[in-house]
Amino acid sequence: MPRLYDYLDSGNGYKIRLLFALLEQPYTWKELDILAGETRTPAFLALNPNGRIPTLELDDGTCLAESNAILWYLAEGSPFVPQDRLARAQVLQWMFFEQYSHEPYVATPRFIVRHLPKDSPRRAELPDRMARGMAALAVMERHLSTRTFFVGERYSIADIALYAYTHVAPEAGFDLAPYPHILAWMGRVSAHPKHIPITCRPPE
Amino acid sequence: MPRLYDYLDSGNGYKIRLLFALLEQPYTWKELDILAGETRTPAFLALNPNGRIPTLELDDGTCLAESNAILWYLAEGSPFVPQDRLARAQVLQWMFFEQYSHEPYVATPRFIVRHLPKDSPRRAELPDRMARGMAALAVMERHLSTRTFFVGERYSIADIALYAYTHVAPEAGFDLAPYPHILAWMGRVSAHPKHIPITCRPPE
Repeated sequence: MPRLYDYLDSGNGYKIRLLFALLEQPYTWKELDILAGETRTPAFLALNPNGRIPTLELDDGTCLAESNAILWYLAEGSPFVPQDRLARAQVLQWMFFEQYSHEPYVATPRFIVRHLPKDSPRRAELPDRMARGMAALAVMERHLSTRTFFVGERYSIADIALYAYTHVAPEAGFDLAPYPHILAWMGRVSAHPKHIPITCRPPE
Repeated sequence: MPRLYDYLDSGNGYKIRLLFALLEQPYTWKELDILAGETRTPAFLALNPNGRIPTLELDDGTCLAESNAILWYLAEGSPFVPQDRLARAQVLQWMFFEQYSHEPYVATPRFIVRHLPKDSPRRAELPDRMARGMAALAVMERHLSTRTFFVGERYSIADIALYAYTHVAPEAGFDLAPYPHILAWMGRVSAHPKHIPITCRPPE
């Protein structure tokens, strides 16, 4: 059974927990305290030299890192990755958009606000990061204005990747009211009968 | 024939040019002056709402963005994407590593040094970005210390993605001498008989 190294409040980790729930696939879960340096220990760096969660340990001990690569590994062959070659690349396009143009500007502000001290010098980063975050949300809003899901009119891992930090963006101070198509899309994602919230702690 | 919107000095664009050369696949090429705002015009934003090169326009007018998603689209089914499920996910792992942990800290310093004025306030970003860039290079060095290529002991699009900005890192001021395994790997990549340099301008 695969073992997920994770941190409950991480949207990147939640992507994997949500997909496991949708696929009804069992796994074991190990939470690491990223704030206490538990992803920088020699033992964990031996599993993932880049020292980040989520990391998925397979039955043979092989470890896979990068949340969106783990999504692809688990979902390939399921309805959450399309069969069509162009649609597959479009799923990847949105997942690379998520990691390059969205996560640093939506997830990182949430981390700064929720987990760093109120007098942290990193709070100075918030205005620039949040401006770029709103630019990413505007790209999503425009795309969703004519679509129900990001690719091929069906729920895929591209939606999981983008939902993870978008739905908790208000925790960083983002106002999602100007993005009605994003709000409607989030409603469609969370209406899936096997949906779980980010706060749902798997058994360890 | 696909049409590549690109900028010659871009490592992200070079990834696609290099793969086209390796696959011996013809394409048309259109250079945009990113410094003059040619990726922010209404005409280009209609092709890619995120306003970035490279963007690949297919015969039916569909546009694909994100360099690593374009690599996957073009290479799936070729020897540059493995068949094995785990190896495929490992290729994606390294491509997400490239966009999240490498490109902002290796490519962006090169852009600041080469394309922004000498008195640009963005030069203040260089020390922090380059420290993170060296951390990414250290992860690559450790991985390559026991391998010839990033995944499965053969040249894949993971190598193309990481080679693109690593081989020009000295242009940003990085010293690659402390990374002998990276240097040897770059030699293997550039020894491919169909290799082309980043400076090789395709016919427009």
